[in-house]
Amino acid sequence: MTEQFREVDLCVTAPRGFRAGAVACGIKSDAAIKDLAILASDVPCVAAGTFTTSRTPAAPVLLCREYLRGGKAQAVVVNSGNANCATGEQGLRNAYRMSELAAARLGIPKELVLCSSTGIIGRQLPMEKIERGITAIELSSDSGNDFAEAILTTDTRPKRIALEFEIEGRTVRLGGATKGAGMIYPNMATMLCYLTTDVAVEQAWLQEELRAAVANSFNMISVDGDMSTNDTCLLLANGLAGNTPLNEAHPEAGHFREALHRVTTYLAREIARDGEGATKLMTVHVRGARDQADAIKAARAITLSPLWQCALAGGDPNWGRIVAALGASGCTLDPDRFDIFIGPVQVVQQGGAAPYDEAAARSVMAASEVTITIDLHLGEAEATAWGCDLTHGYIDENTLYTR
Amino acid sequence: MTEQFREVDLCVTAPRGFRAGAVACGIKSDAAIKDLAILASDVPCVAAGTFTTSRTPAAPVLLCREYLRGGKAQAVVVNSGNANCATGEQGLRNAYRMSELAAARLGIPKELVLCSSTGIIGRQLPMEKIERGITAIELSSDSGNDFAEAILTTDTRPKRIALEFEIEGRTVRLGGATKGAGMIYPNMATMLCYLTTDVAVEQAWLQEELRAAVANSFNMISVDGDMSTNDTCLLLANGLAGNTPLNEAHPEAGHFREALHRVTTYLAREIARDGEGATKLMTVHVRGARDQADAIKAARAITLSPLWQCALAGGDPNWGRIVAALGASGCTLDPDRFDIFIGPVQVVQQGGAAPYDEAAARSVMAASEVTITIDLHLGEAEATAWGCDLTHGYIDENTLYTR
Repeated sequence: MTEQFREVDLCVTAPRGFRAGAVACGIKSDAAIKDLAILASDVPCVAAGTFTTSRTPAAPVLLCREYLRGGKAQAVVVNSGNANCATGEQGLRNAYRMSELAAARLGIPKELVLCSSTGIIGRQLPMEKIERGITAIELSSDSGNDFAEAILTTDTRPKRIALEFEIEGRTVRLGGATKGAGMIYPNMATMLCYLTTDVAVEQAWLQEELRAAVANSFNMISVDGDMSTNDTCLLLANGLAGNTPLNEAHPEAGHFREALHRVTTYLAREIARDGEGATKLMTVHVRGARDQADAIKAARAITLSPLWQCALAGGDPNWGRIVAALGASGCTLDPDRFDIFIGPVQVVQQGGAAPYDEAAARSVMAASEVTITIDLHLGEAEATAWGCDLTHGYIDENTLYTR
Repeated sequence: MTEQFREVDLCVTAPRGFRAGAVACGIKSDAAIKDLAILASDVPCVAAGTFTTSRTPAAPVLLCREYLRGGKAQAVVVNSGNANCATGEQGLRNAYRMSELAAARLGIPKELVLCSSTGIIGRQLPMEKIERGITAIELSSDSGNDFAEAILTTDTRPKRIALEFEIEGRTVRLGGATKGAGMIYPNMATMLCYLTTDVAVEQAWLQEELRAAVANSFNMISVDGDMSTNDTCLLLANGLAGNTPLNEAHPEAGHFREALHRVTTYLAREIARDGEGATKLMTVHVRGARDQADAIKAARAITLSPLWQCALAGGDPNWGRIVAALGASGCTLDPDRFDIFIGPVQVVQQGGAAPYDEAAARSVMAASEVTITIDLHLGEAEATAWGCDLTHGYIDENTLYTR
């Protein structure tokens, strides 16, 4: 099955008809670091988006929500280093101005240019730098990786992927780039994700597919996609593959869905793995739950426990922390029935200590990826969440963020 | 007004008719540290309790809930170093046995002896050590502070208080001791609190007053009293002051309520101040909220933000972290109306940056107590929450907890 989806390079510019470019325009204190980028399609795209549900959304989020009402977009302009949040009327004007400048640069209607910002909250955007930067950006179809780099903040590395597969016998592509590293608490990190494809799709169906894909990927990592001020996930589909537009009835709809799921899950895991100060990726799989909501609650609760995250950092199979987080999660459980496994090692049997090999458990905990499996033995529902460990690096990174 | 409530020594043994004692029985690895204690009244007490709502409650919590159905108790036996949680049938039998042993030692019915445990989850209690320890405990009316010490785990110091005041012209006392330090996330720490008084009270009224006092104190610190496996708050009222039992209609009911509020708030703040690795106490006061639920949501959200906690540790007035936490809290707000103050320094005005003196803000942030005030300008409701900063000490403490 795997060769149905082949990895290719260039992430967001991998699909036909997408170009990107990035510059260092001086928003970030280090003038050598790229902090402004444009991603554009040669033709208007069917577009879908999911955004933060914060009550203090950033200005660019308000712009995206408005412009996406038409279900179309052709480009997005993104800056890092400044979140354009808590910036009032001026901030909103600046977001619209940023979109307008990029539209002029690209020669397309401003309503087709979305925008995003990420970085420090509460400062106005340096519009002169942005204006000069937009003018200086050169777009090309092999600059997807530059785009992926320019959107980063405290990330230690870019997160990008593109898959190639077939729809109606045509070779098509789906690419994505994302950022986000402030990981420990779900409502703080800014997560930005840009997905592009040359597949033709119907807008309403695309929006629903994006919502579902985000629910199982970005909303299952320890950055709760719906809670930060700037969180944004956009999908632009320019249709240049020329297939019959996909909808629920299309026989190959599931194939696109699978590609989308693979791309979003990959990118979500990469965000978790690159959490601020993180040294380990944690995967929590809950099965046997009474229903899906319970499975999600339980899985997320484990990834969100700083005490368990610390134990993970220390390679300490202190499963009592898992039990406490599970009990506090609010999921339905029978305290005398659930099992817990650290990797393949069963540490809890029917709610109490299982007889296990401590050395084996420590060996599993020492790896850079650790999987926790919880079987609630109450039903058939399951869910997977991803997180990371909590280390001194996180503290260092956030103690003096604005200085 | 203050002299109506005078501080006196000996915490839980300050009220007449209460005795306590503690020993080091060897549950903790350091054999010199007290880890087993008994608190007892000379006569049966009207008793009230609030407990964790975790789905994996510890065995002693199950015992307390059962025994408190009668609304009476005379003593409590507590061990630290072992939580007796996730210990199944054997754990439950051990909790009842612990109560029975203490009852035999005191010569009172076992149903009047409550018990608590705190420490590592998932290990059976060492019952032989506990049995020998209970036999060895000597009770006296001046050992309240020994009791306060023996219930500690990762706490750096005891938290205890006693107030003396008048009811019906009689001098009465209310004392309390508490523990809890795993502070950063609300559903993890074990918080134990024992309150004693010689005031006569009606049981139903006492239970309701305790619930209300806990809601405004322990449930407003960054240890969510209703979410850990072992959280317990008990109040024993032996009535030896001889007053007409207090109920809602008693003219001095409010006076007792005020004393109870002062004691629980003091103890809650002390827990927050002594959070694992904490160097600073944070007080968050939210006013102008549409309703009480919103005020609580907003205040707690700020204390629970690890990013803001890190900024607090570094003395960095990075108020964007407060805005993000506020927006994510789910409280109703108008993004163009709220104000934020760090100490007396207004840093946010109508949802955006206020012109403030950076040096003044940094000076406030450098203190060991920092108060954040948020005015939502939407109504009359208010709430106060307490928390602490997040430092390397927290990571160190929890990385290798079971080793």
